[in-house]
Amino acid sequence: MDRKEISQAVIQRLPRYYRYLEDLMDQGIERISSGELSKRMHLTASQIRQDLNNFGGFGQQGYGYNVANLHDEIAKILNIDRENPMIIVGAGHLGQALANYTNFQKRGFILKGIFDINPERIGKEAGGIKILPMTEMKTLVKKEKIRLAAICIPKSESIKVVDDLISYGIEGIWNFAHIDLDVPKHVVIENVHLSESLMRLSYRLFEELK
Amino acid sequence: MDRKEISQAVIQRLPRYYRYLEDLMDQGIERISSGELSKRMHLTASQIRQDLNNFGGFGQQGYGYNVANLHDEIAKILNIDRENPMIIVGAGHLGQALANYTNFQKRGFILKGIFDINPERIGKEAGGIKILPMTEMKTLVKKEKIRLAAICIPKSESIKVVDDLISYGIEGIWNFAHIDLDVPKHVVIENVHLSESLMRLSYRLFEELK
Repeated sequence: MDRKEISQAVIQRLPRYYRYLEDLMDQGIERISSGELSKRMHLTASQIRQDLNNFGGFGQQGYGYNVANLHDEIAKILNIDRENPMIIVGAGHLGQALANYTNFQKRGFILKGIFDINPERIGKEAGGIKILPMTEMKTLVKKEKIRLAAICIPKSESIKVVDDLISYGIEGIWNFAHIDLDVPKHVVIENVHLSESLMRLSYRLFEELK
Repeated sequence: MDRKEISQAVIQRLPRYYRYLEDLMDQGIERISSGELSKRMHLTASQIRQDLNNFGGFGQQGYGYNVANLHDEIAKILNIDRENPMIIVGAGHLGQALANYTNFQKRGFILKGIFDINPERIGKEAGGIKILPMTEMKTLVKKEKIRLAAICIPKSESIKVVDDLISYGIEGIWNFAHIDLDVPKHVVIENVHLSESLMRLSYRLFEELK
C-alpha cells in the first residue's frame, strides 16, 4: 500500500480511531459495524467507511470490522507497532506527568531518560527511572539512538536545548514550551500550546453565553 | 463590531497572535509592521493584514501595528480581558502542572480551587492554594459562580464528575481525560488528548525518515 495516498485529514483522525479501538478491545469486543462505531464516535457511518477504506477496506458486509485487526493496522500506519524510545527534558510537574503516563508506554513510547538542571530533582524517580542531569543527555541520546524528545522546560531555555538535541540526533520534538521553535527541515515538531487551548475554550465559552 | 463576522479559522489563529504580541510587549517593542510580524510568525504579511483587519484594521500605513492596542483588542475578542475563575479537578502531576502555570493567571484565569479524592494530597498546596476534597466542589463552584473546570482525572471517573460539575453550573470543560465526553449543548469542551498528539508526532517522524 502506498502510504502517500492517505490524506492529512484522515491521518489527523487515526489516533482517535485507535483510541476507540483500544477501548473496544479492553471491553472484550471483537467486531464492530461501521454503524455502531459511528454512534460511539459521533461520526457518520459513511465517513467511517470512507476513512477506513483508505487502508484496505477491512470491513466485511454483515460482519463489520475485526477490532484487533483494525487496531493493529492503524498502529502500523501510525508507526506505533514498534518500540519508540524517547526522552523527557524537564522534570517539573508537566515532565513528571508525562513520565508517569502509562498510556504512552502501552503504545510503545519507552521512556529512556528524563533530565533536569535542578539539583533537587536529580536522582529522584519519575516514571520508574532516575532523573538525570542535563549534561548526560548527549551520551544517552547517542548511545540509545533516540529520536523523540518531549520539551517541558521554560521557553527561555528551550531554543538552546532543542538545538543541542538536534545535534545529538533527535528528529521529533514534542514541544510544550510556549514558543514556536525553528528547526531544520528533517525535524518534525508537534506543539502542545496549553495556554492557547485555554484561550480558545474561553472564547467559545463566552460566545455561547451571548 | 459584530463578532459573528469573524471566521473560526481566524479565531483559531488569535491565541497565537496574542502570544507573539505578549512577547513583543515583554521585549519593550511598541509597534510592529505586518512585514516584521510575518517574519516572526512565519505567516505572509498579507495573511496577517487580512486576519487583523477582521477586527478594525489597527495597522496604519508607515506606522504598523500598535502592539499594546492590538494585544488588548485580541484579549477582548478572546474574552480574556477579565478575570475568569476556574477550578482544577485532579491534583496529580498534570493537575499540579496546570495549577502552577503562572501564564494562566497572567491571562486572567484565576485558580479558585483544586480538588482530589486522594487523602494524601488533600491539604497540601498546589498553585498557592490548598488541595480540597472533591466533596467540597459543589459549594465552591456555586458560591463563586465558576464556569470553567480543567479535568485531570482518569477517564473512568471523569464521566460522573463532569455530569456533577455541569449540574453545579460549570459550562466550560478543559478536558485532559482520554475520553470524548458527552455534554449538553450549552456546555463547551476543549479536549487535550496528549496521547493522540504523540501518535501524530510519531506518524510524521517516521514518514519523514522514509
